[in-house]
Amino acid sequence: MTLEEIIRKSLEEDLGSGDITTRYLDLEPINSIAFIVAKAEGIIAGAELARQVFKILDSDLKVTLYRKDGDKVLPKDEVMRIEGRAASILQAERTALNFLQRLSGIASITARMVAKLEGTGTRLLDTRKTTPLLRNLEKYAVRVGGGFNHRHGLYDMIMLKENHIRAAGGITAAVERISLHNTSYKIEVECTCLDEVAEAVAAKVDRIMLDNMNLKDIRAAVKKYKNKVEFEISGGISEENILAYAKTGVQFISSGALTHSYKSLDLSLLFKE
Amino acid sequence: MTLEEIIRKSLEEDLGSGDITTRYLDLEPINSIAFIVAKAEGIIAGAELARQVFKILDSDLKVTLYRKDGDKVLPKDEVMRIEGRAASILQAERTALNFLQRLSGIASITARMVAKLEGTGTRLLDTRKTTPLLRNLEKYAVRVGGGFNHRHGLYDMIMLKENHIRAAGGITAAVERISLHNTSYKIEVECTCLDEVAEAVAAKVDRIMLDNMNLKDIRAAVKKYKNKVEFEISGGISEENILAYAKTGVQFISSGALTHSYKSLDLSLLFKE
Amino acid sequence: MTLEEIIRKSLEEDLGSGDITTRYLDLEPINSIAFIVAKAEGIIAGAELARQVFKILDSDLKVTLYRKDGDKVLPKDEVMRIEGRAASILQAERTALNFLQRLSGIASITARMVAKLEGTGTRLLDTRKTTPLLRNLEKYAVRVGGGFNHRHGLYDMIMLKENHIRAAGGITAAVERISLHNTSYKIEVECTCLDEVAEAVAAKVDRIMLDNMNLKDIRAAVKKYKNKVEFEISGGISEENILAYAKTGVQFISSGALTHSYKSLDLSLLFKE
Amino acid sequence: MTLEEIIRKSLEEDLGSGDITTRYLDLEPINSIAFIVAKAEGIIAGAELARQVFKILDSDLKVTLYRKDGDKVLPKDEVMRIEGRAASILQAERTALNFLQRLSGIASITARMVAKLEGTGTRLLDTRKTTPLLRNLEKYAVRVGGGFNHRHGLYDMIMLKENHIRAAGGITAAVERISLHNTSYKIEVECTCLDEVAEAVAAKVDRIMLDNMNLKDIRAAVKKYKNKVEFEISGGISEENILAYAKTGVQFISSGALTHSYKSLDLSLLFKE
Amino acid sequence: MTLEEIIRKSLEEDLGSGDITTRYLDLEPINSIAFIVAKAEGIIAGAELARQVFKILDSDLKVTLYRKDGDKVLPKDEVMRIEGRAASILQAERTALNFLQRLSGIASITARMVAKLEGTGTRLLDTRKTTPLLRNLEKYAVRVGGGFNHRHGLYDMIMLKENHIRAAGGITAAVERISLHNTSYKIEVECTCLDEVAEAVAAKVDRIMLDNMNLKDIRAAVKKYKNKVEFEISGGISEENILAYAKTGVQFISSGALTHSYKSLDLSLLFKE
Amino acid sequence: MTLEEIIRKSLEEDLGSGDITTRYLDLEPINSIAFIVAKAEGIIAGAELARQVFKILDSDLKVTLYRKDGDKVLPKDEVMRIEGRAASILQAERTALNFLQRLSGIASITARMVAKLEGTGTRLLDTRKTTPLLRNLEKYAVRVGGGFNHRHGLYDMIMLKENHIRAAGGITAAVERISLHNTSYKIEVECTCLDEVAEAVAAKVDRIMLDNMNLKDIRAAVKKYKNKVEFEISGGISEENILAYAKTGVQFISSGALTHSYKSLDLSLLFKE
Repeated sequence: MTLEEIIRKSLEEDLGSGDITTRYLDLEPINSIAFIVAKAEGIIAGAELARQVFKILDSDLKVTLYRKDGDKVLPKDEVMRIEGRAASILQAERTALNFLQRLSGIASITARMVAKLEGTGTRLLDTRKTTPLLRNLEKYAVRVGGGFNHRHGLYDMIMLKENHIRAAGGITAAVERISLHNTSYKIEVECTCLDEVAEAVAAKVDRIMLDNMNLKDIRAAVKKYKNKVEFEISGGISEENILAYAKTGVQFISSGALTHSYKSLDLSLLFKE
Repeated sequence: MTLEEIIRKSLEEDLGSGDITTRYLDLEPINSIAFIVAKAEGIIAGAELARQVFKILDSDLKVTLYRKDGDKVLPKDEVMRIEGRAASILQAERTALNFLQRLSGIASITARMVAKLEGTGTRLLDTRKTTPLLRNLEKYAVRVGGGFNHRHGLYDMIMLKENHIRAAGGITAAVERISLHNTSYKIEVECTCLDEVAEAVAAKVDRIMLDNMNLKDIRAAVKKYKNKVEFEISGGISEENILAYAKTGVQFISSGALTHSYKSLDLSLLFKE
Repeated sequence: MTLEEIIRKSLEEDLGSGDITTRYLDLEPINSIAFIVAKAEGIIAGAELARQVFKILDSDLKVTLYRKDGDKVLPKDEVMRIEGRAASILQAERTALNFLQRLSGIASITARMVAKLEGTGTRLLDTRKTTPLLRNLEKYAVRVGGGFNHRHGLYDMIMLKENHIRAAGGITAAVERISLHNTSYKIEVECTCLDEVAEAVAAKVDRIMLDNMNLKDIRAAVKKYKNKVEFEISGGISEENILAYAKTGVQFISSGALTHSYKSLDLSLLFKE
Repeated sequence: MTLEEIIRKSLEEDLGSGDITTRYLDLEPINSIAFIVAKAEGIIAGAELARQVFKILDSDLKVTLYRKDGDKVLPKDEVMRIEGRAASILQAERTALNFLQRLSGIASITARMVAKLEGTGTRLLDTRKTTPLLRNLEKYAVRVGGGFNHRHGLYDMIMLKENHIRAAGGITAAVERISLHNTSYKIEVECTCLDEVAEAVAAKVDRIMLDNMNLKDIRAAVKKYKNKVEFEISGGISEENILAYAKTGVQFISSGALTHSYKSLDLSLLFKE
Repeated sequence: MTLEEIIRKSLEEDLGSGDITTRYLDLEPINSIAFIVAKAEGIIAGAELARQVFKILDSDLKVTLYRKDGDKVLPKDEVMRIEGRAASILQAERTALNFLQRLSGIASITARMVAKLEGTGTRLLDTRKTTPLLRNLEKYAVRVGGGFNHRHGLYDMIMLKENHIRAAGGITAAVERISLHNTSYKIEVECTCLDEVAEAVAAKVDRIMLDNMNLKDIRAAVKKYKNKVEFEISGGISEENILAYAKTGVQFISSGALTHSYKSLDLSLLFKE
Repeated sequence: MTLEEIIRKSLEEDLGSGDITTRYLDLEPINSIAFIVAKAEGIIAGAELARQVFKILDSDLKVTLYRKDGDKVLPKDEVMRIEGRAASILQAERTALNFLQRLSGIASITARMVAKLEGTGTRLLDTRKTTPLLRNLEKYAVRVGGGFNHRHGLYDMIMLKENHIRAAGGITAAVERISLHNTSYKIEVECTCLDEVAEAVAAKVDRIMLDNMNLKDIRAAVKKYKNKVEFEISGGISEENILAYAKTGVQFISSGALTHSYKSLDLSLLFKE
């Protein structure tokens, strides 16, 4: 789905057979001014998208962004100003906020995690644990928050998991089979112990995902092979423990929670009286 | 979008131009058995939907549900069993889990909030603060968790907000205008003080939303008008304070956090060795 | 489907692989002026929609509305003026008229039925007996003609029919079951005799549909319960008998014929010579 | 749109965010038997389509057709039998009937008009005055009723109207221009007087539409040119006057009313008690 | 699919989850000028379409056409100029060229074949052997190259093939059956020998396709029946032999190779330094 | 678009408002057997896809594949057998062949080019010069023919072209900028001379595209840097010159002609008499 389709279908989801409150109030069109205002601290992501929601619903609405994606907001900060038919603003309000609050929530938690990594050289990656249909948007919000994108789907990077490896008869065999056909993509292998790491390094993969390994083993792997392969730590990462993991010297830590368990940023739309 | 379209487009989002790991491994099809297993306590929602994800990707997969929606799971509990081509299971895995974990997350937080209300007679409502494109699914998960659905969109209930009321010249005037045309829908009015509540009651609306009012005023409103109108408390509801609000005797408390800031239930897919 | 999708697909239906008359005539583009002219008396509905048909086909066409929705026309009245490429006008003509004539036909018959109700206080309702894919448009045309909308679909009002009631074990049991879950929607019950009416009133439903009941029983029901419940008469309503039914004092009469058996308003497009 | 898309979107239009009556009744699934029964005399069209509506909503429904398209029904005749989950039958009922009643209405009026033509050798044609998005279905219903299809759209036959002719500089010039490019399609020309008919015949068109000409002129045209060209009478045809027009000896009479102003055939769905 | 849908989905196919080169280069927007330049001789088709590709990707791009469809180009000739954001030009480039090169390839081979026919009076027809989803565009390119369109699909002309004829019990029987229902379409019959031709002529079909017949038989058929029916030669036509076939005096020669085996015209996009 | 959507819309493109030949012949359904037969030598690609075309049109058709993708065929070889309703076979025939002939054409030319590379160790790559909307299918056919896939779109590999490099201020600067953000994708750089190659190698890119460079320079580049980077030759590759290029020792040669200028494999459907 293109972004425009996502917005149109989201508006359709909320409007259904029509906004009956406005229809039955049956007032003359009124020009209003409204503001999207922050009620908590965070990082804005999706401001341009929210503008498009308003414009697609009613191309006569005038939307002025006061904050752009990546900007920090504090409570009471105004994020954008919308002017035009009051009914149009009310009809787009919920959809615009539903996008903006979610994406800003992702950018905010990402930024907090990234802040913990300052000075370590470790990069924070997202995962494929995204909301169905909104992956591109959520991965964008991760970038806005200072994180980096892991693969976007099954189509842009090769990831050998335990099941693949077992079926192929081991890491070495799996990588050899892949290399018979692959000309364009990086290869990552999930490893759960140091022996697997050693085999993967020997097989010359591009990256090794250290899956739920303990700090001691991670340190050993990184120390021994850092110059030969990239490492990614995955599993059970939180704001509390991320720094400890980063101090092992890995290039990447990936976190599913960035996109599967974020808290929406508290924002609301207020009409100017 | 129908449920089937949502599933198909979610799979398409993950598969894109193809699963290159499987394509380049180029193995003979292998029959595998996998289980979706809980790694945390919660309420399952979306089991049937997850089954459909697997079946739409590959109609030859056999999916057996061990838990149905509404069932409680503890860590290590098996939720469902999938048998068939390993490549198919791997291709549907992430999409199936992305749905199941999110909906189960919503059902779980809903159930926890509902548990707090036990004995009070107050019902927990959701809001329109849902993920764009997934509203029907998320509202379903709220019901699975024991919550109740507020309106589904702008089309199935009339909600007069401050801006509507001001434009119409007051609550009384707004309700009169609505009643000239409305024959099918309930009318709810947002009130922020007791004077507005009094006016709304006099105008014979069906429900009054007490928007960010303090406990004292809520108690006063409920005491005076409970037999004439339904009340709904909205704004700033949490697991901690919901009981205090419920003890005011209101029929309804609505919470946006049920759908905008839930934590996905921790579930994973494991292959049988 | 959004209105724009409906229009685009309707134009596609008529244009298919292209307008071969224009293609093979292969003339230089000519600027023309055309008028949509009434050939019968009626009420216009869909003028703005017809304008969009022309604009979507060719955004350079200039469309001026002489009549707006709800206006009455007499034979020879001009409804709108279209100016621009003759080929574009000819390509959009049939689709624009197919919408405009149908919606105006619905508005016209609705207006005639509503006129019969003058002074009675009874409101004329539509039904779900609408043309597949065009329900929103047809229900709009009913409102243009002075009628009121019954529920838009299975999703915005609860309607207990005989089959539901029997399965639940009676009206009382059915309403009780519904009330365990429903927080947002009005409940209507179909009754076919006075005993059922009595039970439905006792169950405190919002509205009772008197389904094909005779005038005597209707009068009895209305007289006894008018202050406790709304009544709707349904079944076999025509221009001839509607007034007799209205005189029973019911609030609502619903008519499927408004949308399933209307006559298109006779309109045609004439080029200025 | 394919037939399946039309059916799916029509069901979606009625179901929207869900059938709340069934949802909130929350009964165990019940097996029911229902019949679609005629309440008026007419010709059935769309029986197979109605069956598909039921099957697409719930593939477990069993539908048995008692009448096939083209069969005549009298009041109380059973058209089809549906067995399966009661909720599914109720959810598909209105959509299935909305199609079946409309198409049967078209077949019925077509059959009545065709009956008037018996013995004359004149064929009854439909027009492009069809319901947007449903043209293929409506033209099918015309065939079921014994009528014949005129062109399906702007793409499958060449029709020169007054405006085309004037722009090209006359009938002869227009036909010459067309013939420079056209290799596949028949050419019809709209004529409003005998002089134009003479010119069109000389230009060797395939068919001449006699547009709102009087009986006397029609007779003259047919008499003089019948062996050189096909004639089609168009404009103001009704059940009352069609025979008079047919007696002029024309091959074709076209009627927009077949599809723009038909009356739905009265059919209803009854559950077996 | 409408042209706009085809373009949007083609761009989506190339852009997928985003242009990662531009995203990660992360440069300030730069204004660039680029030209589409011919690298071989040929006929341009699709210039306006290519313009739309650029405009749909980025409506701020300015596209100036130096050649219009049907114009001949030589190596180094500039076809169009595009000015605007460099990233936008690069993102639309491949899709625009993929359309323009293919359609120009078709127009070019068509023009070469048509040139061979000069002076013969024979017209070159295309077939239904077109690229799935792009038939309208490819048939347009044939017209641009000076060819003529055969039927667009199964829906706009009647074509009796051997299998139809056998099933109906012969050409005469088949044509009679068709004529019972057909009022709008021309009838063509595939014949493989002179006896079949004789029967088809007697049955008064509109056109006869001489399917893989030898020159001698073709000449015989044309000589005998040219005034009674149109002839079309089909099968094994090439630039080398087309003139010999045309000299038989047939009205039409059809060639599948025009659309199933053309060579894309060599064009490339160059940025102005 | 999913494969199923592509097939459905391709069938819709050919069927439009219906197969009028079959409709008007109006025969009883006949069971027939047909074969797809090769009329030239080549490699089959798309056999399973062709089967799906028949099955989607009519799920009762029985399709037996005699050849699978990658198999070689000679003239008169039977590729598949189709049995079922003759009308269904005729309605799907053209669409099935249009896919099968094109994909087999691509596989055939690819196989011929790959044969030239035998023993050289050089791999043949495709490009993005594919038919709009059919890229996945065409890239599949390249693999069937023994070729390898280059990137599928702008989203799965980073490709720095001259314009990117100039804007970034040189290859080194461009690669540095990319590396600030990219964590998942390989980087390829287009070079046109040895100095650029040297800079790209120093910048540690993954692959260098030698764009239209002469054999002497290619040999020099490969000799000097083969162990540090992959090389890809692009531009002007043909069956005649590919071996000479391969002998330079490059890992990859890419050819746009594989997908932009292939000849459809000659196949036809014959009914069993």
